[in-house]
Amino acid sequence: MINKLIEKIRKTNAPIVVGLDPMLNYIPKHIQENAFAEFGETLEGAAEAIWQFNKGIVDATYDLIPAVKPQIAMYEQFGIPGLQAYKKTVDYCKSKDLVVIGDIKRGDIGSTSAAYAVGHLGHVQVGSKKYAGFDEDFATVNPYLGSDGVKPFIEVCKEENKGLFILVKTSNPSSGEFQDRIMDGRPLYEWVGEKVAEWGADHMGKEYSYIGAVVGATYPEMGKVLRKLMPKTFILVPGYGAQGGKGSDLVHFFNEDGLGAIVNSSRGIIAAYKQEAYAEFGELNYADASRKAVEVMIEDISGALKNR
Amino acid sequence: MINKLIEKIRKTNAPIVVGLDPMLNYIPKHIQENAFAEFGETLEGAAEAIWQFNKGIVDATYDLIPAVKPQIAMYEQFGIPGLQAYKKTVDYCKSKDLVVIGDIKRGDIGSTSAAYAVGHLGHVQVGSKKYAGFDEDFATVNPYLGSDGVKPFIEVCKEENKGLFILVKTSNPSSGEFQDRIMDGRPLYEWVGEKVAEWGADHMGKEYSYIGAVVGATYPEMGKVLRKLMPKTFILVPGYGAQGGKGSDLVHFFNEDGLGAIVNSSRGIIAAYKQEAYAEFGELNYADASRKAVEVMIEDISGALKNR
Repeated sequence: MINKLIEKIRKTNAPIVVGLDPMLNYIPKHIQENAFAEFGETLEGAAEAIWQFNKGIVDATYDLIPAVKPQIAMYEQFGIPGLQAYKKTVDYCKSKDLVVIGDIKRGDIGSTSAAYAVGHLGHVQVGSKKYAGFDEDFATVNPYLGSDGVKPFIEVCKEENKGLFILVKTSNPSSGEFQDRIMDGRPLYEWVGEKVAEWGADHMGKEYSYIGAVVGATYPEMGKVLRKLMPKTFILVPGYGAQGGKGSDLVHFFNEDGLGAIVNSSRGIIAAYKQEAYAEFGELNYADASRKAVEVMIEDISGALKNR
Repeated sequence: MINKLIEKIRKTNAPIVVGLDPMLNYIPKHIQENAFAEFGETLEGAAEAIWQFNKGIVDATYDLIPAVKPQIAMYEQFGIPGLQAYKKTVDYCKSKDLVVIGDIKRGDIGSTSAAYAVGHLGHVQVGSKKYAGFDEDFATVNPYLGSDGVKPFIEVCKEENKGLFILVKTSNPSSGEFQDRIMDGRPLYEWVGEKVAEWGADHMGKEYSYIGAVVGATYPEMGKVLRKLMPKTFILVPGYGAQGGKGSDLVHFFNEDGLGAIVNSSRGIIAAYKQEAYAEFGELNYADASRKAVEVMIEDISGALKNR
């Protein structure tokens, strides 16, 4: 799946991923009204609105981008109907040949991690049959519990040719509280990065490992260090746009081959129509605004990479 | 909710929680066969088997125990039907007046953590209405992302009188890889523990904080240190029984008042009928075996507390 991701990045010339993290207040009124007319102001109504909103954005952008990253929390908040919309979104994106990174940030120990891995990336045994629960292509994983929390995910990835992005340095302001603390002369995120590279060596694709890392765009200097520490690790970079990161901050997340990173934008793309820069599109044409925002983002990042 | 948990611990004289972490191979054949006869060997069939299995155990033990801890991964592996069984289990346990600790180990940043918190502990706004997605009483949370990952959970807990158990030192063998690393003279888990106590001071119940910690039974010496570092923090202690912890290891997780900790057992209770000690019950009477195992566990722990 890392090979497919790289192939698609080369084809689209766009090392970016669209974060499908719908909040109800991002969703244009006409979509909410239609959904509530059919299902009422219920969890089912909210889930329908999210699904229609996502479908519009995917239809308007799928030819420009290699991948999407639905954030499961935004669906899980609407309970079972929300998770049904998550699954529908995953399935639809895959039918459009997009690589799907499930931003699930799961992580537990032994058999529990194995259950998450099986549910999101693998197949679960039921009597004599096997089923995929959610079937994303990649999943994000929290490393706090150590190797025996991560390895069950890697086992499933090997069976299924799927991959992970493991949290190393997150994009939020207080990520440093624990992640930046110095241990034996180096910050925790470096120790975690080193482990990710080690775990990744165990499951290599053609050019990069199936086991990637998450490093926030908001910490470009740390990105530079981590890039060198994990040369064969693909880095998923959140925090571009709404969280403050910009193209020129991001060049050091990439290797000399122009690969090695994929930059996520969520709000900046899916709620583009709410920004002044795209206001001309109007609420009805929110998906066209998202397409335009994708084009601008690709230009920003590939421009920065050309001028590095 | 922490007040209710303490009240129920006093009433049952049982500082324990039953981990409802069903694996299909724990579930007696007759339950699986009935479920598959109705729904086929499908995800729905697996979910039905899990639900019937759980119901049997809850019916046989609810009068002896204060709380249950369903592990959502074990349900999530069966996709949407599995999560429906999770929700059914949560609702049923609440109808039996059990305190429900959702072992979800979620954790993200800002609005994403808020979405998880709303989905599991709070109410989500849909138009003019509000709905609870999963509605557990407590949730477990991963602290790797720092304060701005945890605080949105605490905000929802304050609104809803609910609580958290935050991972401090987990019970698995490789938990030390990152958690034990020394920073400024103290291991990471102590820094996290100190933060948990600080966050907890912001949301106090009558005797203890609504914001608890997870510390594995498999590390009793660290439990002793953490107990002192977080005097008002309730500690959820996994790793008893099948993972190797025993009653005498656990006394130092408790305060002098006999409170301050709640010990989880999963496999040791729900799959008790598979152990030699309870083999006499047989597969058909698996729930009676679980009841007996609960009685033995209460005796082990309260015995150790009496002899401390």
